[in-house]
Amino acid sequence: MTDGDRRLHLNAFLMAPGHHDAAWRHPSSRPDRATDVAYFQELARTAERGRLDSIFFADGLAVWHRVGSNVSGGLEPLTLLSAIAVATERIGLIATASTTFNEPFTLARLFASLDHISGGRAGWNIVTSGNTAEAHNFNLDEHVPHAVRYERAAEFVEVAAKLWDSWADDAVLLDVAGGRYADPDRVRPIDHAGTHFKVRGPLNVQRPPQGRPLLVQAGSSEDGREFAARHAEAVFTAQQTLADGQTFYKDVKTRAERLGRDPGGVKILPGICPILGSTEEEARRLERELTDLQVLDYGLAQLSSMLNTDLADVPLDAPVPEHLLPAEDDVNGNKSRFTLVSELARRDRLTVREIIARLGGGRGHRVVTGTPEQVADQMEEWFREGAADGFNVMPPVLPTGLEDFVDHVVPVLQRRGLFRTEYTGRTLREHYGLPRPPGN
Amino acid sequence: MTDGDRRLHLNAFLMAPGHHDAAWRHPSSRPDRATDVAYFQELARTAERGRLDSIFFADGLAVWHRVGSNVSGGLEPLTLLSAIAVATERIGLIATASTTFNEPFTLARLFASLDHISGGRAGWNIVTSGNTAEAHNFNLDEHVPHAVRYERAAEFVEVAAKLWDSWADDAVLLDVAGGRYADPDRVRPIDHAGTHFKVRGPLNVQRPPQGRPLLVQAGSSEDGREFAARHAEAVFTAQQTLADGQTFYKDVKTRAERLGRDPGGVKILPGICPILGSTEEEARRLERELTDLQVLDYGLAQLSSMLNTDLADVPLDAPVPEHLLPAEDDVNGNKSRFTLVSELARRDRLTVREIIARLGGGRGHRVVTGTPEQVADQMEEWFREGAADGFNVMPPVLPTGLEDFVDHVVPVLQRRGLFRTEYTGRTLREHYGLPRPPGN
Repeated sequence: MTDGDRRLHLNAFLMAPGHHDAAWRHPSSRPDRATDVAYFQELARTAERGRLDSIFFADGLAVWHRVGSNVSGGLEPLTLLSAIAVATERIGLIATASTTFNEPFTLARLFASLDHISGGRAGWNIVTSGNTAEAHNFNLDEHVPHAVRYERAAEFVEVAAKLWDSWADDAVLLDVAGGRYADPDRVRPIDHAGTHFKVRGPLNVQRPPQGRPLLVQAGSSEDGREFAARHAEAVFTAQQTLADGQTFYKDVKTRAERLGRDPGGVKILPGICPILGSTEEEARRLERELTDLQVLDYGLAQLSSMLNTDLADVPLDAPVPEHLLPAEDDVNGNKSRFTLVSELARRDRLTVREIIARLGGGRGHRVVTGTPEQVADQMEEWFREGAADGFNVMPPVLPTGLEDFVDHVVPVLQRRGLFRTEYTGRTLREHYGLPRPPGN
Repeated sequence: MTDGDRRLHLNAFLMAPGHHDAAWRHPSSRPDRATDVAYFQELARTAERGRLDSIFFADGLAVWHRVGSNVSGGLEPLTLLSAIAVATERIGLIATASTTFNEPFTLARLFASLDHISGGRAGWNIVTSGNTAEAHNFNLDEHVPHAVRYERAAEFVEVAAKLWDSWADDAVLLDVAGGRYADPDRVRPIDHAGTHFKVRGPLNVQRPPQGRPLLVQAGSSEDGREFAARHAEAVFTAQQTLADGQTFYKDVKTRAERLGRDPGGVKILPGICPILGSTEEEARRLERELTDLQVLDYGLAQLSSMLNTDLADVPLDAPVPEHLLPAEDDVNGNKSRFTLVSELARRDRLTVREIIARLGGGRGHRVVTGTPEQVADQMEEWFREGAADGFNVMPPVLPTGLEDFVDHVVPVLQRRGLFRTEYTGRTLREHYGLPRPPGN
């Protein structure tokens, strides 16, 4: 593909009421449908109507603080995406799942099953689970240290890949007359014995249509970038400025190349929270409405969680006290989010209240407020200037934010030749232009 | 409900090509659709057309021996049932899942999610995983001992129940104006700290529509029966004779009563493999066709697995050598299946070949060959004579065996007033006449 043929890739990041933390209080959201599978099927069909590459669900293994002041307690991603798979035909389906609190046999199997159910549309956003509340649900008093989590994650992905490859593509013979359903020599144990896992295999699911699900990753720490460069085929990232986006893009591509990979085989997808209006004024009004609906307690709890501290008693109209901003090395959680907050506090000297308002839109992701043309301009700039292969689209309010994006931004991108007008492939890998891993 | 109102409960036990081990070689089966979600949706809709209580998928966490000579490597039950849930409206959806190789938070969440997705139709067949091949996929060299597995299972179910109850039924307020999505005082940590698990909670899924999924169990050992009597609401069991069925039925009900439970709250569902024909001769012919299609190597491997030994070199037309029939106490696997084989070998002095033929139909479950009237007679007898509250229906060949059962046996049972003609409830618990557990 020449550079002129290069196309954007778009993922719709779905979350019950939308990405703005006040979305559930906005009249256009549907917080009453947070556990309604039909609602998510409708969102997925909207994304498919826009010819998006994929939809995606984030995940955590605990209820966070202050369950009261935002939507919480929704559906589990792999069961939800299985139910969405059979209500859609083309769109990719990406689920987050943790390598710290799962076993590779179990997870490899769930994703293989989803890939069969969807006809080759499964993707796995690999996370190592950054929050102590998650450890408390899995027999631990303390969290697993950052470095150990990444070491385990690397071995986990290695085992999962071996399991997906354990059935050869041509293992099933269906030789009814001869009584041979499969060729036992093409369904092989993996006999993995490593530091964290001992798994004999083979997997008890036939090789998935895609060979392996698409591997996605979102860590931005040193460990996270190295992991992404080694394993990820798509990377979700939070970048606020074009310069930061370019630096991150180049860094991950360079790391991948150094590891012997084709840098084109790692798609970089920065988050974008598009607050849309038919005029800029209308968009700004929606943004103000959302800010006005923020629950301060919730914002404080979110910020406390990002910083791994308790901000309940700090003055709202003063900067975050310096002693509550730990050095990045001390953070055993979501390091990229911490770095961002730290910049807002240290560099921009924002007050606690201002930081909460700033984070409300995309929880650290870039918010672009404006008309469809303005949002498309921003996307095009990042795409052309080496900061993005596409975007992780985070509508501030659902379902309306996704409908607006599909109906008004996608056509602009299509007119500019930046985005497909029809699906050309059937699998998630085909949508992202990524090869099917060869079998064994 | 007076005894005259008592109705049968029917569960369709689904398995890609059918329950006869030669089903996949029979022209009416579809071994080519073993990973095709649409195939299973069709089976579920057939069962729903028959007004059955539920469908059910067994599960294991390994590929068994001799992967070559039967269908293998199909879909994972929880993802599969999520995809079936949205293609059906009433039928219950029961998935097998292991307490030995899962964590309670993960599994409680998956079942809660399936219960939401299906609008209250989820059931969990609790297994402790009896095969060493499974241990080898989960970091172990040896299997976890039988007693330890059951001890863990009991605590596992206790933790899961606490997690399902951790969101009160009325926890979600949806108070948009007041900024209160849920009442934090009604979403409570469980703070469980036991022998096997330490789980803080609460669950990150709102309370399921059924409160808790239906709990099903199938262990027939001493530990298994005690577990069933304490926890199960439906029990799958393999019983060959009316007398054995009556003894088992009475035993489990008595144990439940002794534990302070309503014995009516534990439904006993023996397995039945109905080999149907419009005449008895036609049914016998189908049975012979299937026996003739058996792959001897596969039967030997199955039998070896049941006995936890290797029969590859024993003469086929002689009895099983006595030294290969261990005492039940030494069996750390599926004890009920072992006992059955042991009876066929020791009591009936069947040859290895004869045992393989006998087990081919229902892998140890009762095979009834005959016309719809004859099969219905057998079911009615067991139901009236205190051996069954209903049946775990195991069609020998799918999809035809289920279609025949629904179209020809169900109407007979309905005419006799033994089975519902329309669904009267919406949830799986309602189908089985079981109460919704109160919240906290």
